[in-house]
Amino acid sequence: MFPDGETVAPAVTAVFTAVLTEGPISRVALARRLDLSSAAVTKAARPLIEMGYLEELAATERTGPGAGRPASPLVIRADREFFVGVKITGDELIGVVCDLGAQVRASAHRRLAAADLDYVLTQLGELVDDLLDGPGDYRARTRRLGLAVSGDVDHSTGLVRYSPFLRWRDVPLRERAEKATGLTVTVENDVKALTTAEHWFGEGVGAESFALVTVGAGIGCGLVVNGRLVSGSHGVAGEIGHVGFDVNGPACHCGSRGCVEAVAGTDAIIRDAGLRFDDAVAAARAGDERVGAVFARAGEAIGCGIAAVANLVGPDRIVVSGEGLSAYDLFEPHIRAGFQRQAFGAAADCPLSIRPLPFEEWARGAATVSIKALVGQ
Amino acid sequence: MFPDGETVAPAVTAVFTAVLTEGPISRVALARRLDLSSAAVTKAARPLIEMGYLEELAATERTGPGAGRPASPLVIRADREFFVGVKITGDELIGVVCDLGAQVRASAHRRLAAADLDYVLTQLGELVDDLLDGPGDYRARTRRLGLAVSGDVDHSTGLVRYSPFLRWRDVPLRERAEKATGLTVTVENDVKALTTAEHWFGEGVGAESFALVTVGAGIGCGLVVNGRLVSGSHGVAGEIGHVGFDVNGPACHCGSRGCVEAVAGTDAIIRDAGLRFDDAVAAARAGDERVGAVFARAGEAIGCGIAAVANLVGPDRIVVSGEGLSAYDLFEPHIRAGFQRQAFGAAADCPLSIRPLPFEEWARGAATVSIKALVGQ
Ligand SMILES: [Zn+2]
Ligand SMILES: [Zn+2]
Repeated sequence: MFPDGETVAPAVTAVFTAVLTEGPISRVALARRLDLSSAAVTKAARPLIEMGYLEELAATERTGPGAGRPASPLVIRADREFFVGVKITGDELIGVVCDLGAQVRASAHRRLAAADLDYVLTQLGELVDDLLDGPGDYRARTRRLGLAVSGDVDHSTGLVRYSPFLRWRDVPLRERAEKATGLTVTVENDVKALTTAEHWFGEGVGAESFALVTVGAGIGCGLVVNGRLVSGSHGVAGEIGHVGFDVNGPACHCGSRGCVEAVAGTDAIIRDAGLRFDDAVAAARAGDERVGAVFARAGEAIGCGIAAVANLVGPDRIVVSGEGLSAYDLFEPHIRAGFQRQAFGAAADCPLSIRPLPFEEWARGAATVSIKALVGQ
Repeated sequence: MFPDGETVAPAVTAVFTAVLTEGPISRVALARRLDLSSAAVTKAARPLIEMGYLEELAATERTGPGAGRPASPLVIRADREFFVGVKITGDELIGVVCDLGAQVRASAHRRLAAADLDYVLTQLGELVDDLLDGPGDYRARTRRLGLAVSGDVDHSTGLVRYSPFLRWRDVPLRERAEKATGLTVTVENDVKALTTAEHWFGEGVGAESFALVTVGAGIGCGLVVNGRLVSGSHGVAGEIGHVGFDVNGPACHCGSRGCVEAVAGTDAIIRDAGLRFDDAVAAARAGDERVGAVFARAGEAIGCGIAAVANLVGPDRIVVSGEGLSAYDLFEPHIRAGFQRQAFGAAADCPLSIRPLPFEEWARGAATVSIKALVGQ
């Protein structure tokens, strides 16, 4: 945490996290929220204020019965430190600089001509330099970089076990990226990174349980249950793309048949429409009934997969997003219909936000993971 | 907690819970496990020892380098207090007396000739009297009763919102059962109660995440994720019976088609075999291929539903049980095959225990819920 390497009392982490995600918040509300004494909150907040991470808002006078000392809510100082986030895809690096409140201050991207590690790291180093040495002068107050990669990522060691789109296996990405950039690096699966961003700074704030479903080449899902990200004991979690939908359906690359992804992933739509994805979208929008039915069935499969999440873990709310939702208008009613049909009883009450994903959001998710690492979580 | 109604420090609850589920355990191990100081552990254990809930085992001499004070592990005093647990079904009450360590000391059951509340409560009162005043003389050291009911149960208020087999709606069961028995009552959904028993005292001990799947008239699932039971924000969780399996399959009572339960529940097997359940079991065991295929398809559907749990939340381990598993031999290979086919990548490594459920286990689950209530959880 801050300063690097020093162990920090759990109460300090708890107070910082609560102010970061729910501030401005008074000491009284913090004490109640965290089940701590007022004295413990004051003690935990002191070093955070001294280091400039938190500050007190001007006291607001309280009037009426019980008015005592004026309340001075605590709030983060957003420009105390900046964080770089980069999403690495098979053909592009997308980078942002965020402040401590996860607001995007700058963004940039680079096409990748290849996916070999040395080349990607060189490009990453240059992208980070562009972001930090450009307007804004973020360099002096930036120590951390978050990287988001699709596939099987070991967050604790920074190892990318397998990333299909990059064709990486057992790549020690954290170690190599720290050498290439000089920053403290945190690596996370891209869907989990995006879920963290929504849970800490987006629609999931305050939710004890929360799901983010991403629609694109693959269908993924990040889950927060009992207040924490679900990581999966055997390295697998959130694989909504391989929930069953149609036991007699098309073969899936996982070896099963009729999985949600085998019906609703980008490749499945291309296969069933017999057109490139963009052409399929255009045809469906122009009223082609056969191609429209392909999107309808895909949306229905996604809705059924989401209902499986709702039926099993009952999240407070579910956000559906992803680059596949550029075809939002074609999917949305069918996702909702599939969900309503398959959601069991009151599970159908779970609010569903369906919205396209701005491309920078993935990189913001990566930056959020490095903010989380600062806080020691 | 103990004494009734008194608020207890979180550390006391944490120490008691850890000794209860993982003891005998030394103070040093407790401090490490709970992230508490040794002084805090000693302070928290003191009232528990004074009240007779915990005791110190005889000190074991430590030898070799670093040998200092001998370690005296803490352990529960199992006969300090007893707990009654009763599962209420549509046609039977099944009751047990358990000790603090959830060992069954006595059991009894009663047929129910009707499901109306007054009648059931009268029978419950008599069953509890039989259990407490029979051999063992448990009455003096029993204050708590746990009740397990299938359906939609509000654990916090003790209200049974809806129980289909009993045809109860909005029944204030806790309040009524306290009047009928004079005990402090806790009410829980039966699958959640069974899951608690496995998590605290069975195969789930020490698991951060854990699933229990029950096979019978319905197909249910209890889930522990991030160390706590999943309750579902909208009152629904663990509805593995209504995960999709075959989008073109038979109609389900939930309004959808081809759910796991619509293919694998007892009624579905009776429908597809054209025989009563026991006759279908006998025919399949005698080698009837058509009826055997009905069980095979049911097992496959259950296995796919279990794979959805593994793919989404990645539990440490999964136990499959329930009265439907009296036909264990017919289901088991097909459950495993369906699971292996649908589990994604390393999710297939999740250990699956498939075993029949002794009928008393449901009642033991109910008793466990009252032990959990004693500990304030
Ligand atoms: Zn698949
Ligand atoms: Zn159903």
